[in-house]
Amino acid sequence: MIDKLIEKIKKTHAPIVVGLDPMMNYIPEQIQKKAFSEYGETLEGAAEAIWQFNKEIIDHTYDLIPAVKPQIAMYEQFGIPGLMAFKKTVDYCHEKDLVVIGDIKRGDIGSTSAAYATGHIGTVQVGSKTYAPFAEDFVTVNPYLGTDGVKPFVEVCREQKKGLFILVKTSNPSSGEFQDRQIDGRPLYELVGEKVAEWGKDCMGEKYSYIGAVVGATYPEMGKILRKLMPKSFILVPGYGAQGGKGADLVHFFHEDRLGAIVNSSRGIIAAYKQEEYAKYGEEHFAEASRAAVEAMIKDISLALENK
Amino acid sequence: MIDKLIEKIKKTHAPIVVGLDPMMNYIPEQIQKKAFSEYGETLEGAAEAIWQFNKEIIDHTYDLIPAVKPQIAMYEQFGIPGLMAFKKTVDYCHEKDLVVIGDIKRGDIGSTSAAYATGHIGTVQVGSKTYAPFAEDFVTVNPYLGTDGVKPFVEVCREQKKGLFILVKTSNPSSGEFQDRQIDGRPLYELVGEKVAEWGKDCMGEKYSYIGAVVGATYPEMGKILRKLMPKSFILVPGYGAQGGKGADLVHFFHEDRLGAIVNSSRGIIAAYKQEEYAKYGEEHFAEASRAAVEAMIKDISLALENK
Repeated sequence: MIDKLIEKIKKTHAPIVVGLDPMMNYIPEQIQKKAFSEYGETLEGAAEAIWQFNKEIIDHTYDLIPAVKPQIAMYEQFGIPGLMAFKKTVDYCHEKDLVVIGDIKRGDIGSTSAAYATGHIGTVQVGSKTYAPFAEDFVTVNPYLGTDGVKPFVEVCREQKKGLFILVKTSNPSSGEFQDRQIDGRPLYELVGEKVAEWGKDCMGEKYSYIGAVVGATYPEMGKILRKLMPKSFILVPGYGAQGGKGADLVHFFHEDRLGAIVNSSRGIIAAYKQEEYAKYGEEHFAEASRAAVEAMIKDISLALENK
Repeated sequence: MIDKLIEKIKKTHAPIVVGLDPMMNYIPEQIQKKAFSEYGETLEGAAEAIWQFNKEIIDHTYDLIPAVKPQIAMYEQFGIPGLMAFKKTVDYCHEKDLVVIGDIKRGDIGSTSAAYATGHIGTVQVGSKTYAPFAEDFVTVNPYLGTDGVKPFVEVCREQKKGLFILVKTSNPSSGEFQDRQIDGRPLYELVGEKVAEWGKDCMGEKYSYIGAVVGATYPEMGKILRKLMPKSFILVPGYGAQGGKGADLVHFFHEDRLGAIVNSSRGIIAAYKQEEYAKYGEEHFAEASRAAVEAMIKDISLALENK
């Protein structure tokens, strides 16, 4: 799957991923109204609104991008109907041949991590039949429980040709509270980064490992060090745009081949129509605003990489 | 909710929680057959088997115990139907007046943690209506992202009178890989424990905070130290029984009032009929074996607390 991701990045010249993290207040009035008129002001109605919103954004951007990253929390908050919209979104993205990174940040002790891996990137046995319940291509994983919490995900990746992005240094303001603490003179995130490199060593695609890392765009200096510590790992970089990261901050996440990183933007793309810059599209043409924001993001990153 | 949990612990004399983590191979043949004959060998069939299995165990133990802890991964691995069985289980436990600890180990950056909190222990707004999608009473939270990843959960707890158990020192063999690393001469889990105490300070029930911690039974010496560092926090202790912890190892997790901790057993209870000790019940009477295992666990822990 890492090779497919790379192939698609090369084809689109876009090392980016669109974060499908639909908050209700991003979803234009007309879509909400239509969904509520059909399903009432119910969880089903909210899920329908999310799905219609996603679908339109996917339809307007899929030819420009290699991948999407639905954040499962935004669906899970609407319970079962919300999770059905998550699944519908994943399936639709596959129809459009997009690589799907499930931003699930799961992680537990061995047998429990195995169950998460099975549900999201693996297959589960029911009697004599086999099912792939959520069928994402990559998932994000929380490493706090250590190797035996991560390994079951790695094993499922190996069997199913899927991939992981493991949290190393997250983009949020408090991420330093534990991640930056010094251990033998080095921050914890470096130790986690080294582990990611180690876990990924035997999981190679053609040039890159399918065991990647998450490193926030908001910490470019740390990204520079982590890039070196995990030379074969793809880095998923959240925090571009709305969270404050800019193209120029991101160049150190990439290798000379212009690969090795994929930059996520969520709000900046899916709620672009709410920004002054794209206000001219109006609520009605929100997905065209998203397309314009994708084009601008690709340009910003390409320019930064050219000037590297 | 912490006060309700304590009240129920006092009433049952059982500081224990039954982990509803149904693996397919724990579920007796007759239940699987019946479910598959009705729904086929489908995810729905698996979910039905899980639900029937849980229901029987709940029916045979609810009067002895204060709380249950369904592990969401075991449901999530069967996709949407599995999560419907999770929800059905939570609802049924509420009907039986059990406290429900959702073992979800979520944790993300602020707005995303807020969405998880909303979905699991809070309420979500849809138009003019309000829903409580999963409606657990407590959830487990992963702290790797720091304060701003945890605070949204704390805020929802305060509003909704719910509670948390935050991962401090997990029960698995590799938990030391990051959690035990020395920072200024002290292990990371102690720093996390101090944070738990700090987060919980303004979240007090009558005697205990509703912001608790997870500390594995498999590390009793660390439990002793953490008990002191988080004097007002309830500690959820996994790893009893199948993972190797015994009653005598657990006494240091408790205060003199015999409160302050709640010990989880999953496999040891729900798959008790597979143990030699309870084999006499046979597959057919698996839930009676579970009841006997609950009684034995309560006795083991009571005895250990008396001899403390």
